Amino acid sequence: MFDFRLVLVYDKNKRMSKKKEKITVIGGGTGSFTVLSGLKKYPVDLSAIVAMTDSGGSNRVIRDELGLLPTSDIRQCLIALSEGEKEQPLRRLFMYRFSRGNGLNGMTFGNLFLAALSDIFGSQMEAIKKTSQVLKIKGKILPVTLTDTNLAAVYENGKKVIGEGFIDEPKHSGKLKISKVFLRPKAKICPEAKKAILRSDLVVIGPGDLYTSIIAALLTESMAKTLKKTKAKVVYVMNLMTRCGQTLDFTAKDHVRILEKYLGKDCLDFILVNTRPIPQKALIKYKKEKEVPVIDDLEDSYFKVIRKDLLSEKETKRVPGDILKRSLIRHDSNKLARAILKILKF
Amino acid sequence: MFDFRLVLVYDKNKRMSKKKEKITVIGGGTGSFTVLSGLKKYPVDLSAIVAMTDSGGSNRVIRDELGLLPTSDIRQCLIALSEGEKEQPLRRLFMYRFSRGNGLNGMTFGNLFLAALSDIFGSQMEAIKKTSQVLKIKGKILPVTLTDTNLAAVYENGKKVIGEGFIDEPKHSGKLKISKVFLRPKAKICPEAKKAILRSDLVVIGPGDLYTSIIAALLTESMAKTLKKTKAKVVYVMNLMTRCGQTLDFTAKDHVRILEKYLGKDCLDFILVNTRPIPQKALIKYKKEKEVPVIDDLEDSYFKVIRKDLLSEKETKRVPGDILKRSLIRHDSNKLARAILKILKF
Repeated sequence: MFDFRLVLVYDKNKRMSKKKEKITVIGGGTGSFTVLSGLKKYPVDLSAIVAMTDSGGSNRVIRDELGLLPTSDIRQCLIALSEGEKEQPLRRLFMYRFSRGNGLNGMTFGNLFLAALSDIFGSQMEAIKKTSQVLKIKGKILPVTLTDTNLAAVYENGKKVIGEGFIDEPKHSGKLKISKVFLRPKAKICPEAKKAILRSDLVVIGPGDLYTSIIAALLTESMAKTLKKTKAKVVYVMNLMTRCGQTLDFTAKDHVRILEKYLGKDCLDFILVNTRPIPQKALIKYKKEKEVPVIDDLEDSYFKVIRKDLLSEKETKRVPGDILKRSLIRHDSNKLARAILKILKF
Repeated sequence: MFDFRLVLVYDKNKRMSKKKEKITVIGGGTGSFTVLSGLKKYPVDLSAIVAMTDSGGSNRVIRDELGLLPTSDIRQCLIALSEGEKEQPLRRLFMYRFSRGNGLNGMTFGNLFLAALSDIFGSQMEAIKKTSQVLKIKGKILPVTLTDTNLAAVYENGKKVIGEGFIDEPKHSGKLKISKVFLRPKAKICPEAKKAILRSDLVVIGPGDLYTSIIAALLTESMAKTLKKTKAKVVYVMNLMTRCGQTLDFTAKDHVRILEKYLGKDCLDFILVNTRPIPQKALIKYKKEKEVPVIDDLEDSYFKVIRKDLLSEKETKRVPGDILKRSLIRHDSNKLARAILKILKF
């Protein structure tokens, strides 16, 4: 039963001897999914800090009926960082959304998975860790906060709404401007998220919905201070398109102005801006939603603007249950990863 | 990065060279769980053929709302045969039952897992196979039929009920005797289940609720014929206790009489009967449910009766979500496995 054989052994430790650079990605949803999908192909030490204010769809059940923190953005990051092939059953399960069943319709399997594990192991942090093991993810997923909080917005007409779902899919025409957002109740940054930022060589903010994915994460207490304190280079990836209800008619400068409002001046070191024109076909579709490409009116300032072709050339199809369904056009994960890694060497 | 090293290699194939004996277990629920948990520790080739008529609890949603075949018994067999340690997150998830959430309360995670995979891969057979891979199960799980069918019973007073749930938890006092059970509609044996029986060296029937777990599986068309045709030794594991609503006041002979009614004479080669007395404490609890130990009035006939201590000495605690919650006393999986394997050499 036992034989001696001469075997060629691949020594993992020898390869690991070079210290990996640490990159932290802040955001949630499609944007973080794209950045992480690209970066995971490189030998870097990845952390994803995820906004925790989602309150629509499947998250409503998770929050209201199961009494847990929202997990949709976490689920997307888990899928992005899972190492398995695309066809791996668990990965596909994680993306699955029930389309039948009275109490199940619309629920995503990944959210149920995280909810069940949270109950079994007594905490959502532990559930995320166990899921990370099961899905063999590359890197770490960290909720930006463990406080049960909501994003609230005050509009230019004085009206206030509480709950990200209402900001994301507003009842007004989408033309009302947001004058202020805040968290209710205030939420503390999760210690592991803070640690990840402080240890990082590079922090990537965005792309993603400015208020509901980016500012929602940046609003947690101590976040602005932590970003000031870290020696990491801070990169903001400029959105490709404006978003009705949040950044209607915003130029690139407007995006930066809002970030500065919540993070303070000097909050960014680099801004990555796409230069490749958006295809005509997509422009027409977006126009119907009152959404247009973000005009690049930036000039170098305390930050450096890096302009590159960052656009995905594949047209995103809207598939039922597709986690990327919101954007028809999007950043190319590989182009984005290459641009981000270049900044590391800057 | 690459080194040559002299390594001691354990050659799995050399050990495997001895042909493994094939054992097929027929039933469902707690009984099959116990038999499979014991047998999986031995180098045998295991198949579990599972009754597909469950219609209560979580299965109601699976059947009525999601339009799938019931999966609770399959889920239990998957857990029994999973190779991972008990604490493995996926195994624990599979046993988890939601206790909150409007549409989720009472649903078992394992059933949702199988339902989602059935939708993704287009068939429940494929879903069972993929789950078997994910849980690293030892052996094969086969639904006894792929026909969407129900167990129906006619009682001595002529009343008829359709649906296993109604037989299992009857609306009458439980004292009414069942005069006949049948499947509605008729259901064909699943070809892979048939093949497993024909190829087996040993077939184990039971233990388990006589009508709702055992006869329910044996009623599928061609099952009786297949059991006649196989060269496998057929073993029936006698239940420890009677069950109100199904086998009230049944002796061991009564159990065999009913099996013969549905399978024909000469259907069994061996009957395994426990000899260890049931603890007094358990007897009192069962008495309240009008349930008593099955009296052993068997004599050797065309079958051989094997009497042994087969009782578990651990008291089963009723834990929420425990898949073994129904029986307070039960067979010992190790004792049972040893007794079954001895028959192989008979």
